[in-house]
Amino acid sequence: MPPHYRFRYTGIRVRDLDASVWFYREALGMELVWRGPVESTSGEVALLRTPGTSHQLELSHYPSGSGLPPPYREGDELDHLAFGVEDVFRAVDELRGRGVRVRVDPPGTGGIVRAFVLDPDGIWVELVADPATPAT
Amino acid sequence: MPPHYRFRYTGIRVRDLDASVWFYREALGMELVWRGPVESTSGEVALLRTPGTSHQLELSHYPSGSGLPPPYREGDELDHLAFGVEDVFRAVDELRGRGVRVRVDPPGTGGIVRAFVLDPDGIWVELVADPATPAT
Repeated sequence: MPPHYRFRYTGIRVRDLDASVWFYREALGMELVWRGPVESTSGEVALLRTPGTSHQLELSHYPSGSGLPPPYREGDELDHLAFGVEDVFRAVDELRGRGVRVRVDPPGTGGIVRAFVLDPDGIWVELVADPATPAT
Repeated sequence: MPPHYRFRYTGIRVRDLDASVWFYREALGMELVWRGPVESTSGEVALLRTPGTSHQLELSHYPSGSGLPPPYREGDELDHLAFGVEDVFRAVDELRGRGVRVRVDPPGTGGIVRAFVLDPDGIWVELVADPATPAT
């Protein structure tokens, strides 16, 4: 029988850790689980999660010129990160008012109401109508 | 008060949906939640998750020449995806035996036992010692 695996977190690289922590914590309501230096990379890491959930988002900042992490093939493998929110229209208005860049306004295409905004590094963040997310 | 958001899934692009579904389902033990065509992109999507958890991994395949999704700035924003597993050494042996490419053997660097393998598209997948993951 093969080992049991658990999908624990998604790690993205960021250019400015303060800007990214602001975006995911202050704009998208995640809580900061831990932030601190990483000796092996001479960099700094922040771990965040939506309160009450377990999957974490790891933001890694590597100092320029550190030679770390190992060479990585550039590509467009990261398609997007998705957040549920009850009212996508209101969420986009609120984020736009805080200076967040909006790439696709709701309702978007397809049958589900959705929108796309950009994180500080230009990563596409999908906002999707999610009845399970409490109204505010 | 700002809206409440919930981090729901991580979406990656894949070149060969069958190969990627094999990797995440057969090799890393995720369960297939849904797989089917996406009319708006003429592509196909698979949603997976570790059994008993809620955060999903979305694998998106876009047909070549479709012109979709919209232009996306290439980069190396996706650092890695992380899976917990009780015995990292055994997991790496098992995956290597199934043809999975291993990039960093355990114990790796730092105080925590970890390793890195590659998914079919070369995305770095971290395996990290996770006492919460049941032994097999």
